[in-house]
Amino acid sequence: MKSIGRHMIMEMWGCSGLNSTDIVEQALREVTEAAGAVLLDLIVRPYTPQGVTGVAVVSESHVMIHTWPEYSYAAVDVFTCGKKAYPAAAMPILKRLFSPERVQVMEMTRGIFSDD
Amino acid sequence: MKSIGRHMIMEMWGCSGLNSTDIVEQALREVTEAAGAVLLDLIVRPYTPQGVTGVAVVSESHVMIHTWPEYSYAAVDVFTCGKKAYPAAAMPILKRLFSPERVQVMEMTRGIFSDD
Repeated sequence: MKSIGRHMIMEMWGCSGLNSTDIVEQALREVTEAAGAVLLDLIVRPYTPQGVTGVAVVSESHVMIHTWPEYSYAAVDVFTCGKKAYPAAAMPILKRLFSPERVQVMEMTRGIFSDD
Repeated sequence: MKSIGRHMIMEMWGCSGLNSTDIVEQALREVTEAAGAVLLDLIVRPYTPQGVTGVAVVSESHVMIHTWPEYSYAAVDVFTCGKKAYPAAAMPILKRLFSPERVQVMEMTRGIFSDD
């Protein structure tokens, strides 16, 4: 079976830095580069009273970070297509920048098709 | 157990309209409104030689559409937090706008925690 993309879904608990737009932007830029993707658009937006949403649209799909500082929780998605991209490269960067106490990772294969 | 968000993941095959930035933008706007979310930022970007990526950052998280017209395939994510949002409202809109022959839907609960 062939497929179109890989979608890494991460749940991070016990994080720090979740209210910082600078850290979220840095994470998006570093993850994009480390994953071998090309950054096309970047949105980083603080929420009121707290939390940040960051989106990197990349040539190979997207990287997304939503943070809830009140729960020390961040939801992170890295969706890449193509064989060159390496979404797992996100993990050491996210661990360094957000210092999570606990991380759950799931990888979904998107767009599975057969050649038949 | 309580949770922070609901993440609907949709795989749509046999679609039409996948090369139209207008249709992708319309889908993002209609899905956002129907899901009870508030639109904050919108990016719709055509790819070369084909395909479209659209992102709606909403107050309740995000709606994302990536299309691969060469495979008649679209990947759609609707991530909402809060009890008022209704991500399942996306489905009839997506079916009307992209006429998929086959749809797979998965819903993930994001940010599960206990009160203990």
